[in-house]
Amino acid sequence: MTHSATDTRPFLDQVRELLGSRGFTDDPDLLDPWLTDWRGRYTGKALGLASPANTQEVAALVRLCHDQCVPIVPQGGNSGMSGGATPDTSGTALLLSLRRMDTIRALDADAREIVCEAGVVLQTLHDAAEKERLRFPLTLGGKGSATIGGLVSTNAGGTQVLRHGSMRAQVLGIEAVLADGSVIDTLTPLKKDNRGFDLKQLLIGSEGTLGIVTAATLRLLPEIGGRRVIWAGLGSIGQARRLLLHCERMAGDLLEGFEVIPRHSFDAVLDYLPDARNPLGGKHEWHALIELVADRGADDTLDPIVEQMLETALENELLDDATIAANEHQAEQFWLLRESIAPAERAIGPAAQHDISVPVARMADFVAEAVPAVERQFPDHEAIAFGHLGDGNVHFHVLAPRGSNKEEWEAAQAKEVSRFVYDLVTRYGGSISAEHGIGQIKVDELQRLGDPVALATMRAVKQALDPRGILNPGKLLPLASAPDSP
Amino acid sequence: MTHSATDTRPFLDQVRELLGSRGFTDDPDLLDPWLTDWRGRYTGKALGLASPANTQEVAALVRLCHDQCVPIVPQGGNSGMSGGATPDTSGTALLLSLRRMDTIRALDADAREIVCEAGVVLQTLHDAAEKERLRFPLTLGGKGSATIGGLVSTNAGGTQVLRHGSMRAQVLGIEAVLADGSVIDTLTPLKKDNRGFDLKQLLIGSEGTLGIVTAATLRLLPEIGGRRVIWAGLGSIGQARRLLLHCERMAGDLLEGFEVIPRHSFDAVLDYLPDARNPLGGKHEWHALIELVADRGADDTLDPIVEQMLETALENELLDDATIAANEHQAEQFWLLRESIAPAERAIGPAAQHDISVPVARMADFVAEAVPAVERQFPDHEAIAFGHLGDGNVHFHVLAPRGSNKEEWEAAQAKEVSRFVYDLVTRYGGSISAEHGIGQIKVDELQRLGDPVALATMRAVKQALDPRGILNPGKLLPLASAPDSP
Repeated sequence: MTHSATDTRPFLDQVRELLGSRGFTDDPDLLDPWLTDWRGRYTGKALGLASPANTQEVAALVRLCHDQCVPIVPQGGNSGMSGGATPDTSGTALLLSLRRMDTIRALDADAREIVCEAGVVLQTLHDAAEKERLRFPLTLGGKGSATIGGLVSTNAGGTQVLRHGSMRAQVLGIEAVLADGSVIDTLTPLKKDNRGFDLKQLLIGSEGTLGIVTAATLRLLPEIGGRRVIWAGLGSIGQARRLLLHCERMAGDLLEGFEVIPRHSFDAVLDYLPDARNPLGGKHEWHALIELVADRGADDTLDPIVEQMLETALENELLDDATIAANEHQAEQFWLLRESIAPAERAIGPAAQHDISVPVARMADFVAEAVPAVERQFPDHEAIAFGHLGDGNVHFHVLAPRGSNKEEWEAAQAKEVSRFVYDLVTRYGGSISAEHGIGQIKVDELQRLGDPVALATMRAVKQALDPRGILNPGKLLPLASAPDSP
Repeated sequence: MTHSATDTRPFLDQVRELLGSRGFTDDPDLLDPWLTDWRGRYTGKALGLASPANTQEVAALVRLCHDQCVPIVPQGGNSGMSGGATPDTSGTALLLSLRRMDTIRALDADAREIVCEAGVVLQTLHDAAEKERLRFPLTLGGKGSATIGGLVSTNAGGTQVLRHGSMRAQVLGIEAVLADGSVIDTLTPLKKDNRGFDLKQLLIGSEGTLGIVTAATLRLLPEIGGRRVIWAGLGSIGQARRLLLHCERMAGDLLEGFEVIPRHSFDAVLDYLPDARNPLGGKHEWHALIELVADRGADDTLDPIVEQMLETALENELLDDATIAANEHQAEQFWLLRESIAPAERAIGPAAQHDISVPVARMADFVAEAVPAVERQFPDHEAIAFGHLGDGNVHFHVLAPRGSNKEEWEAAQAKEVSRFVYDLVTRYGGSISAEHGIGQIKVDELQRLGDPVALATMRAVKQALDPRGILNPGKLLPLASAPDSP
């Protein structure tokens, strides 16, 4: 059912009664900031903003919504890249913020486990771990706003996936509210548990369409003993792939990052950052940013390995030139170059950005084929691939012809460019969403290019666990029918 | 529908036509060995034994069974511990063996990935990896018969879970046939892929009730550089827990095994093995078997770490005595002591065996409470806990009073003993099946003690993906209704 202006009042009164004045608002001044995603691509409407204080309130609220068939859009830090936390424009949904649930329920330093409520901000988790001389091995640009609930629901990635895996690999247990308001609790971590389907895995990465994550138990690692950051100059992406294999062989588990930067992006960053310097003397077609990390106590193993790794790489012509950051300050400057690519490219002009992955072994071939293919197909466009080579995950940007008007180009060409890129990725057996998720931005492309068997199976699961379609409708996996009265 | 003797003939003719003479038999001499599980606990009946040669044949066969509502019991090496691969006694099901599908489709030594069909035996996988100077980091007693399909379907464990995780952690992709005969293929491994629900994770450990795994892509690791195996004598299980934490802190990722053996089991093994010797001089209430493993090239890091680890452990009274295996032969003898516990205990007399887990941090408390509690509740019984302390997974055996008649004791007491143990495990937030799965042996206990929300959710998923209930019916999760005609 869609609520008309008049008949929503009894429902909203019930919500207000349930959550109290701190837990609900429909004041537009308070609501509006959360109705647009942070990149400003989507703006929706909502009945109001619910901010429950605990799991019991979330459960009661979902039960209420379930009974009255009111759609729910869960939201954490509102820092997603795919519009997954922004409601549609119908105004029929309730926006459900988990931000008030920001308690760290437990931290067991011996067991290296932490139990965070959904609203705990990633930076807060990092700080709590550091106090115990531990670390949480996942970070990303939005760490000051991204919440644990959002990170779990979207199986977030970041720059440490190469060694430590994405969010899925960090989650030991979750607590979640299902579509009918029942609570599933697997927070107690068991290293071995074979009591049937692993429902936790089903909820991770389901973008709030199967349940609302209210808390998670996460693994922690010993704090870092030290790191070495290397900047290397390369002739080709194929050489980068060979260097990556070499580093994996030589450094094993110490290898924590392997990022690639093409000349175009590097030049853009040098133009963009006022004080940026080229870490190397000459010009190179490609650059690699390589990071090795040792746990506490094992710091002295790093230098001999780095030295031997680079020496043999030079001997075998796996790189043209390389330098090791002399200190932590310089290491941060190397990373700043990498992290400035996105804003630097944005400063040049409009672009279509693609968060894609292909098998690691095929990434070099993919880039070598895709860049000229895109530029042939779309004259005056420039294609740039950079990022997590070690994960088979590059950010593939296609820049509009210089001087293009953003709106005009986006209306006329951007979609076609993206279709072309996604078709090519699919031919390589890759994914049209490596780490940002489907949200609303890639719903159509997933329907077009996804494996029909996988899509049918996902729809069957969605239908089974949320038969009324109230959980984040229209995201990830549109069902044939809209939410309907019971 | 249940097939009567006469009306199954047309179906069996279709199966025969589909699979050819190598692919189907109903000859009792060929069929019978596979109708009883290897421990001899369950014997069932079947319409026949289907042995498809490839995924297409599996898909066509499942489609046929789906259309005619014929139940399917998938089977790998028939080495499961829970009767999950044995049909019921109705004789209405088709036994589906994956053993003929034993091809290693690909091995990429650079990417450290191998694609195995379901029927590849674990030992064959180990051998293939070794040839490339790689290893597959999961092993168990039945490695000469256990198949990849079975290991994936049951999320098998073993002795290396502490460091490397169970089967789930080794699986990069799977191919599986779903209940309607459609094929889901995620064999191409992507390190990052956020295109919706992770269906692979749902199928892993689902014991053939949601789909039939036909192939899997598995990760491989560099071969071992060396290992050190330590036998330690301890005063209590609490001390073992403190020693484990100490070893984790000192050895980090090198710690690959931490097993505990109580005095009772140790004495039983010394009686049982003709040439067994006590690695230590004195008598101890508890023993720990500790293994550290270094990758190829890192062997020389082991000795200083082992030395420092044991020295500080002695200083801090975390162990009473310890010895390091002087060579590989002695290391194997230490492990033989551990692996002989089960047969040695069996030789004493009948016992109720429980494969259980609790949170690692609570395992010592659990054992300290459970052993006397069981012995108080069941006079003249002996309770023994041994095994994977590092995983929070002990094998908890309760021995019948000496001289008991096996059949009589099992009929009169064994079930009550197990209920008592499972109740206690559940109170500790643990699992009644750590690594052996539910199969048919624990179906009732899972219904009794499982979280009702989790069970309801599992049933909804099962109903959605296998609405006719043809996949391994009666295992893991009994549905309310039996398979029915379309």
